Amino acid sequence: MKSIHYPLIIVNFKTYTRGTGQKGLQLAKICDEVAREFNVSIVVAVQMADIRWIASEIEIPVFAQHVDAIYPGSNTGHILLETVKEAGATGTLVNHSERKITLKEIALIIQRARENHLYTCVCASTPKIAGAIAALSPDSCATEPPELIGSGISVSMAQPEVITKSVKIIEKFNPAVAPLCGAGITNSQDVEKALELGTKGILIASGVVKATDPKKILEKMAQVLLKFQEKK
Amino acid sequence: MKSIHYPLIIVNFKTYTRGTGQKGLQLAKICDEVAREFNVSIVVAVQMADIRWIASEIEIPVFAQHVDAIYPGSNTGHILLETVKEAGATGTLVNHSERKITLKEIALIIQRARENHLYTCVCASTPKIAGAIAALSPDSCATEPPELIGSGISVSMAQPEVITKSVKIIEKFNPAVAPLCGAGITNSQDVEKALELGTKGILIASGVVKATDPKKILEKMAQVLLKFQEKK
Amino acid sequence: MKSIHYPLIIVNFKTYTRGTGQKGLQLAKICDEVAREFNVSIVVAVQMADIRWIASEIEIPVFAQHVDAIYPGSNTGHILLETVKEAGATGTLVNHSERKITLKEIALIIQRARENHLYTCVCASTPKIAGAIAALSPDSCATEPPELIGSGISVSMAQPEVITKSVKIIEKFNPAVAPLCGAGITNSQDVEKALELGTKGILIASGVVKATDPKKILEKMAQVLLKFQEKK
Amino acid sequence: MKSIHYPLIIVNFKTYTRGTGQKGLQLAKICDEVAREFNVSIVVAVQMADIRWIASEIEIPVFAQHVDAIYPGSNTGHILLETVKEAGATGTLVNHSERKITLKEIALIIQRARENHLYTCVCASTPKIAGAIAALSPDSCATEPPELIGSGISVSMAQPEVITKSVKIIEKFNPAVAPLCGAGITNSQDVEKALELGTKGILIASGVVKATDPKKILEKMAQVLLKFQEKK
Repeated sequence: MKSIHYPLIIVNFKTYTRGTGQKGLQLAKICDEVAREFNVSIVVAVQMADIRWIASEIEIPVFAQHVDAIYPGSNTGHILLETVKEAGATGTLVNHSERKITLKEIALIIQRARENHLYTCVCASTPKIAGAIAALSPDSCATEPPELIGSGISVSMAQPEVITKSVKIIEKFNPAVAPLCGAGITNSQDVEKALELGTKGILIASGVVKATDPKKILEKMAQVLLKFQEKK
Repeated sequence: MKSIHYPLIIVNFKTYTRGTGQKGLQLAKICDEVAREFNVSIVVAVQMADIRWIASEIEIPVFAQHVDAIYPGSNTGHILLETVKEAGATGTLVNHSERKITLKEIALIIQRARENHLYTCVCASTPKIAGAIAALSPDSCATEPPELIGSGISVSMAQPEVITKSVKIIEKFNPAVAPLCGAGITNSQDVEKALELGTKGILIASGVVKATDPKKILEKMAQVLLKFQEKK
Repeated sequence: MKSIHYPLIIVNFKTYTRGTGQKGLQLAKICDEVAREFNVSIVVAVQMADIRWIASEIEIPVFAQHVDAIYPGSNTGHILLETVKEAGATGTLVNHSERKITLKEIALIIQRARENHLYTCVCASTPKIAGAIAALSPDSCATEPPELIGSGISVSMAQPEVITKSVKIIEKFNPAVAPLCGAGITNSQDVEKALELGTKGILIASGVVKATDPKKILEKMAQVLLKFQEKK
Repeated sequence: MKSIHYPLIIVNFKTYTRGTGQKGLQLAKICDEVAREFNVSIVVAVQMADIRWIASEIEIPVFAQHVDAIYPGSNTGHILLETVKEAGATGTLVNHSERKITLKEIALIIQRARENHLYTCVCASTPKIAGAIAALSPDSCATEPPELIGSGISVSMAQPEVITKSVKIIEKFNPAVAPLCGAGITNSQDVEKALELGTKGILIASGVVKATDPKKILEKMAQVLLKFQEKK
């Protein structure tokens, strides 16, 4: 598996036009360049139809944005974990605020991902929910207050207590789970604050994908990551 | 757009292991060979992560098995029509029995597919539902009694009245919609009967994907298609 | 069955506090009084837990706001059509914009409601969808542009073409289905316009439930209904 | 609130014909009689439309089988917690295997139920999931392997390790949550075993509702409950 280390930035391409197809590939290459130049950990979470292509063109890890809680078989129109893996993904987002699933599905996806050596980043909307997710033993849990997603108001600045509570409850229920956070993050100060509050990385979407100069923003964030790598 | 003509066979790869990744590509190549050898219309409906790759390797049309009723934007983990199209798909299944969606979503997907020149094959479980779907003007409507899907008992032999009623109601509500059928079809006699009953093609999955010799079965079905092409 | 005649007003109590429990009963009694005073057709669509109680206290028909597409059996937490009927409901809303269901479910609910002599008012968000619904033969179909629901801007004034197209397409596909409309209706002019455009009634919620004086508004609307009853 | 003490039997009426309307009331009265005769804790979880009526006729607590994760307002066809409470329910099942909801919805329902003094029994299909639920602090968590529901093969006899693991993980994550179990329980031996394994009660449906003599079965189960009450 392509290695993932902390602190970590996961760039979620969603279904933004600038994250789709040719444009998505260009953006993925920018993420790849910055990650290699600074030797920091950046992951791109791309659309299903782009995974194989993008994974073959860059070195950093490629994630799916969702997989379904199914096994191989009669499941028309579903996303099979094994297919995502064969296409080159090394991890997946799970239960994103825009793709919420049942508790039973979350548990099955985490279990099957582990069996298939696929990294899981499960999203939570509150610290309480982060605790429940930690109990299911994913690789990481990203707390994202939904009202801040896409707002430009960062969770780390506007609701630092959401982050500190999440870090604490995840530590309590399952210290093996990496606490991440997201929502509204647009600049390197937001990232720095998030790491200071105890997270091991961030989940970002529009802040990079819709930026005028994504490379510049990622470079500044990479410098923050570097600083926290050295601290350890 | 890669041309679709009638009668038509749509092979649905579902998430069968034999329809996934490398194996899926092999199977798609078999479908491609038979279609070109006999000059008949065969389409493969493959998993999202395989669309781009398979579409670049074969000449016949590649379909998605599902797209979401969304526009470009903040939709983590969803299937965007534009992405599917850019990846090389020329059509999509909609509302398959294993991926049922709301009426509102069906209507929006049909409309957006038309605007983007993507072919739609919308699935119905009963003739009554086929009528409702015809009213929404997709390119085709495939009636599939869910209890026969994967059963090996073909709809054309076991429930011919389901087909004749569907053909009639689709003709009544919207004669521009091509009536198809599926469920339990495993051999060329099933296909012949389906076409005799007035359909313009069939939707098949396990009958081809899980067959010991998919090529042989497709060749026999292709001969039936040829016969009906000549009739016209 | 308590009789339903046209033109018709269906008052949807949703889960508004003023439509719940004791307050819901009071509001239902106001609807009952106006209907009997003016001898016009008014129906109340109330919450499940209130159906039996309200139905025992008023004379006009009581509807459910939703039933599930199930049969008696192992369905924890679902709404069974037979239970709703035994509790005193004589009809149900289906596929409301706030409770959208699959096409297959709509078809099954309409069929089962017919077998159990329960009236169905199925909601559509566009004229095209109204046509598809008409093909399924409910008792009535209410077109409601979702963006106008609760807006105070009435569909009949702001988007009259949505109504005329819906009336036309329903007439074309199934003239036995009564065309209704809703969304943003707040006063008797809105109702008059809706009936002039060819509908046989309206679906209203906040316009009555959240009104300062629901009785006064209903009385004015009842006068409009009377005028159209006499026309026939 | 009508008092709930342990050990506890929750009888889930589902949408069984014998649990609906008049028949549902009769069955609820049997549960009520046994509970009062033996002075044990029995709860009935009935259909929405029957809550008010049954709650007014019996003394033991009445539960809903589901509530929606909503607030009062524009939610046609949804189940509002406040309405359920005003109708006389003192608790609710949440996330039953036949009515699975998202993790976010479970968390919100538990929080709102607590604020409104409504008891929550949240269902889990595995011990791992029971742990995640315990982290959300409901009143109780009932582990039910879905494959045994309605099977007549009891979880306590067939999969005792599922119970012991659930009891242990719930104790670890949140000892304030009462561990319950269910699935396939049909007789008093099953109940005895479940309590011996450390649960504080059971969730039962067909074992009582579809029994030839529900009263006789409940009386035998009540004797088991009595025995465990005395132990303490």
